[in-house]
Amino acid sequence: MDEIRYCPIGIVHSPLQAEDHVPPRPVRSRGIEAVVEVFPEYAEGLTDLEGFSHIVLLCHLHLSTGFSLTVKPPSDTVTHGLFATRSPRRPNPIALSVVRLQRRDGTKLHVIDADLIDGTPVLDIKPYFAATNAADEVRTGWREGKTN
Amino acid sequence: MDEIRYCPIGIVHSPLQAEDHVPPRPVRSRGIEAVVEVFPEYAEGLTDLEGFSHIVLLCHLHLSTGFSLTVKPPSDTVTHGLFATRSPRRPNPIALSVVRLQRRDGTKLHVIDADLIDGTPVLDIKPYFAATNAADEVRTGWREGKTN
Repeated sequence: MDEIRYCPIGIVHSPLQAEDHVPPRPVRSRGIEAVVEVFPEYAEGLTDLEGFSHIVLLCHLHLSTGFSLTVKPPSDTVTHGLFATRSPRRPNPIALSVVRLQRRDGTKLHVIDADLIDGTPVLDIKPYFAATNAADEVRTGWREGKTN
Repeated sequence: MDEIRYCPIGIVHSPLQAEDHVPPRPVRSRGIEAVVEVFPEYAEGLTDLEGFSHIVLLCHLHLSTGFSLTVKPPSDTVTHGLFATRSPRRPNPIALSVVRLQRRDGTKLHVIDADLIDGTPVLDIKPYFAATNAADEVRTGWREGKTN
């Protein structure tokens, strides 16, 4: 099947400077402040985004290299199939981050709870709607962390 | 910034045959059954996925062409910035779908609630964890549908 090509629409500015600084359990990312800088040519597309308390960031994990189809998550003692984990090393290393939008200053989005490394390219930004982004009666196959 | 290249890991088989068959309000997708067929070389990565009631599909909206930075959603009467909407026409047309996983038959994932067109290429599959995928105290900037 054909190759798919994307171009970043922005970049993440974050205090997390290296891959091993990213908390393995996302719950530990609570409180980390970051700025998503959207490139000027997309500025108009941000209109009204500030009405949302939460947004979804889809980012390219640019430091991810290679992948294994079986993975032992940091919070578990047994291996699982890669697609049953949130490992950053994936065939297409796209990160999905639900973050709180604190405020928007023009093309700069001030967000909280981002588990993204400084310099991460942003592919897409979506508004968070509970009806489409959240699921009911959730069952998980393994425990991602103590709060899950 | 550099172009990013991805290759599909699977394909969606769905009763939705054309873009205008996709329900504009995702809540109407409830109940639509689809099959995600993962390519054989990634089969091992699906191990344990069936333990999850819900999964996240990231797909390439292959029929999406061009985009406008301002959009009037079907459920609203005023225009909004593109990134404050779920319009399928985006600079990087990646769809985010939270779906119920009914069962797995080898590399075939039987899912419910998918709002994806037949033949859509799949980029990534992630397990759904409430602690990371769902947000609390959500405020939305506009009403996506009557149930939001």
